[in-house]
Amino acid sequence: MHPPTVEDVARVAGVSRQTVSNVLNAPQRVRPETRERVEAAIAKLGYRPNRMAQSLQAATSRMIGYRIKPADPHGLSSIHDRLLHAMSEAGRAADHHMLLFTANDEDEVANVQALHRAGAIDGVVLYGIGIDDPRPPALRRLRIPFAAFGRTGVDSDHPWVDIDNAAGTAAAVEHLVELGHRRIAFVSGTVGAAVADRCAEGWRTALDKHGLLDGSHGLNLRGEDTIATGERFGDALLDHADPPTAVVGANDTLAIGVLRAARRRGARLAVVGFDDTPAAVAMDLSSVRQPIEAVGHAIIRALLNEGGPTGLLLNPELVVRASSALP
Amino acid sequence: MHPPTVEDVARVAGVSRQTVSNVLNAPQRVRPETRERVEAAIAKLGYRPNRMAQSLQAATSRMIGYRIKPADPHGLSSIHDRLLHAMSEAGRAADHHMLLFTANDEDEVANVQALHRAGAIDGVVLYGIGIDDPRPPALRRLRIPFAAFGRTGVDSDHPWVDIDNAAGTAAAVEHLVELGHRRIAFVSGTVGAAVADRCAEGWRTALDKHGLLDGSHGLNLRGEDTIATGERFGDALLDHADPPTAVVGANDTLAIGVLRAARRRGARLAVVGFDDTPAAVAMDLSSVRQPIEAVGHAIIRALLNEGGPTGLLLNPELVVRASSALP
Repeated sequence: MHPPTVEDVARVAGVSRQTVSNVLNAPQRVRPETRERVEAAIAKLGYRPNRMAQSLQAATSRMIGYRIKPADPHGLSSIHDRLLHAMSEAGRAADHHMLLFTANDEDEVANVQALHRAGAIDGVVLYGIGIDDPRPPALRRLRIPFAAFGRTGVDSDHPWVDIDNAAGTAAAVEHLVELGHRRIAFVSGTVGAAVADRCAEGWRTALDKHGLLDGSHGLNLRGEDTIATGERFGDALLDHADPPTAVVGANDTLAIGVLRAARRRGARLAVVGFDDTPAAVAMDLSSVRQPIEAVGHAIIRALLNEGGPTGLLLNPELVVRASSALP
Repeated sequence: MHPPTVEDVARVAGVSRQTVSNVLNAPQRVRPETRERVEAAIAKLGYRPNRMAQSLQAATSRMIGYRIKPADPHGLSSIHDRLLHAMSEAGRAADHHMLLFTANDEDEVANVQALHRAGAIDGVVLYGIGIDDPRPPALRRLRIPFAAFGRTGVDSDHPWVDIDNAAGTAAAVEHLVELGHRRIAFVSGTVGAAVADRCAEGWRTALDKHGLLDGSHGLNLRGEDTIATGERFGDALLDHADPPTAVVGANDTLAIGVLRAARRRGARLAVVGFDDTPAAVAMDLSSVRQPIEAVGHAIIRALLNEGGPTGLLLNPELVVRASSALP
């Protein structure tokens, strides 16, 4: 006697083979009554599909690796939640799931290699990409499929999805210029220096367009990504001989520090952050919002559809709140 | 000729079988030079382990399911990041990984069932547990291993780990009583009503202990979990005929709303939140911090060690900041 098959289950339940497959793989697509009938047939026949056996045949685990890092105790930005949900949803549509792993920086590639060789993952999503990031070339040498949230150099030839950080910061500057500001400072951090550099470029380009760059020497500060540093930067800028009337931050953490300094001193200083964190909402901070959901969906598509476009640059969106009201 | 084995690789690389196993499963434990030697031997022999084949033999996927929900656009609290990292780390120590899936509430159990039957997960971690949550009994009927962050009724007999929310809120009240406050209000939301009920119980118990409960009628407000609701509650409490001098929130979202109302009006009102979110740090809000990292480790232990203690209650910790300074 042969072990029961999907066809046997379909016949006993009086449904199509596809419906049985849906109950097994995407039960949300099946009405509860039908689902119960199929479940009863599965139980009666003792049918047992085996995804791992299927995987062995298909030589695919239908799993995508993602390294989860510990939360930064000083940072306010947290993209994991939104990104992981978006990628899980996109993966589901393509019958893939996300597999989380932890690793130190120096062991990340070796861990990916071990998971891939063991057949636990088909590929991996990278993020926090630096200009000279060693992971893309290493994974390419190992022939492990990957897609990156972020680019290495300008000519990144690996599959990537990124936010146009320069455009985001430029939009913040444009908004402030429209409100009448002429002296606009920029503060950025050391985490993700490549991103901070692109934001600085957006700040410079937008200022230059309005003939404001020459007068902005000494208004570009970089330091640790903490609220305390932002607060120190805020004090320093307000103590400047010719203080700025507005500040753009490369992230909300620094921008909130600047805003705290301004509010503590009762100073009029417009502030715009980057990342649109929950803290920005709580503090009425204008901020540039990254389309993380779109990034999550695009990165899974980039990973699963080999041969598609190499790179995709998405535009962030400025969310205006009270912190950049008219001065 | 037989396919190459771990022993062959060990012999060629001049290392122990365990070292080869470490390179395959936990490369971070192996020094880079040794790792390279083993990798070279693996490449030379064409050795290919197969985790899925191993899983078929062991009838275990070494994967733990976790449903990731979309981020609440109004809430400030986000535990996924910290919890997922802690669980991934705990899982790694036991050679397990986390598998993320998405689902609607009504399809969650059916999705878990499909993943479990397909051999994609060994068990699942539940969270957001309600008093009459249908998931624990359903999973028990299906004989699917699970552990829950949260309890159902008082006599939960499924494996769970929870925060003692009543103790956390009581600690906040004690702190305010010590500072001299006698009229202490409580605000809570509708999301996670079981948790809000336990916080309310902690508030009542602590007030009663100091003989302050009888005078606190009308100081217990419940509404939507948004900053706007908290702000409305703050205004209502400050407009009270006999206004409170302090407010305890069941979460930071509502507490920050109250704090915004107080600051906008220049009113002296001490405020303590719950969850210690990044926004609490940005706003100098005192808040009760959940030991999420400990929860993550404990819940994986509870899931993997069947037969251990059924429940584990962990104490949160009050973090004092400027929002509850002396009035």
